[in-house]
Amino acid sequence: MDVKEFFQLSAGKWFSQRTSHHLAFKQSESGKSDIKIEMLAGDDPVVIDLCQQYDIDPKLAWGGARVTWDGTMEWDSEKHEGSSVLVPIPDLDTPQSGKLLRDVGYAEKAGVAGRYIIGSDDAMTLITEYETMYSEERIWFASPNLRLRASILKRFGGFSMASFCSEIRMGVTKT
Amino acid sequence: MDVKEFFQLSAGKWFSQRTSHHLAFKQSESGKSDIKIEMLAGDDPVVIDLCQQYDIDPKLAWGGARVTWDGTMEWDSEKHEGSSVLVPIPDLDTPQSGKLLRDVGYAEKAGVAGRYIIGSDDAMTLITEYETMYSEERIWFASPNLRLRASILKRFGGFSMASFCSEIRMGVTKT
Repeated sequence: MDVKEFFQLSAGKWFSQRTSHHLAFKQSESGKSDIKIEMLAGDDPVVIDLCQQYDIDPKLAWGGARVTWDGTMEWDSEKHEGSSVLVPIPDLDTPQSGKLLRDVGYAEKAGVAGRYIIGSDDAMTLITEYETMYSEERIWFASPNLRLRASILKRFGGFSMASFCSEIRMGVTKT
Repeated sequence: MDVKEFFQLSAGKWFSQRTSHHLAFKQSESGKSDIKIEMLAGDDPVVIDLCQQYDIDPKLAWGGARVTWDGTMEWDSEKHEGSSVLVPIPDLDTPQSGKLLRDVGYAEKAGVAGRYIIGSDDAMTLITEYETMYSEERIWFASPNLRLRASILKRFGGFSMASFCSEIRMGVTKT
């Protein structure tokens, strides 16, 4: 599988159950979210814009995706909603890995480029290094309608959180 | 990494946080457990016994592990405790995969042999097929002191549960 196929498989609407294990204080927190993933073409202005922000030639991008989420977490009453544009830029020599541009970081509000790697088992691993944080997320399909994500977050050199999401495609009767 | 090294890395005492996402009714359940993993030598009587139960020549086993757990789950007041002996029998031609004998199945009480595969990313995948169930578990180390497990359970042809465990080695100050 290449990164474009991975994005295509991800396109659609998903119901996501999330659990975060806070490692230091041994507590877990759960959340739920509706997620929408839409494919964007290479000539979409937001794709071109994002490439330009990172000084990357937009011709290197086949396109990307817009991810929109709307959910809640257990420990706060705040609404967790937002959207982010993701544009993968495959490495020229090894296209199974590359940069992943995003306009909003997952763990910090500033945009940050991560690295993706698609393994021989068709799972995608995303690695993002922030100034004081490191996150590693593995995303894989148990079936076309069940997507799983496991991530770990490191802060100041130690692991602080492990999270897991199970995402069911909406509108299907069988996962 | 081979299966013996994987077992050796797993040996010790762990604090495990578990979350199960029940997919059909979109609810999650959390639990906590103390887990102890002890290595067993190839000439240990329980290893020899287990091989014989499966009609396997005990000479094919380098040993195994005894896993003991003691925990609680959110939705019942029952104590979840027990122990299981695991003995891997590497395939002769491809030792990165093989049979995994156990005296107690994870999801059913009867003993059942599964398959293990150690990937190029050093994660171990365990596949167990029961009469009416199929389980697939991926176990990997984020660090020597942080072990993660993600599993899915299929019943009657559809996925019914996705579970995640984060396991911290006890007695260390840094994960």
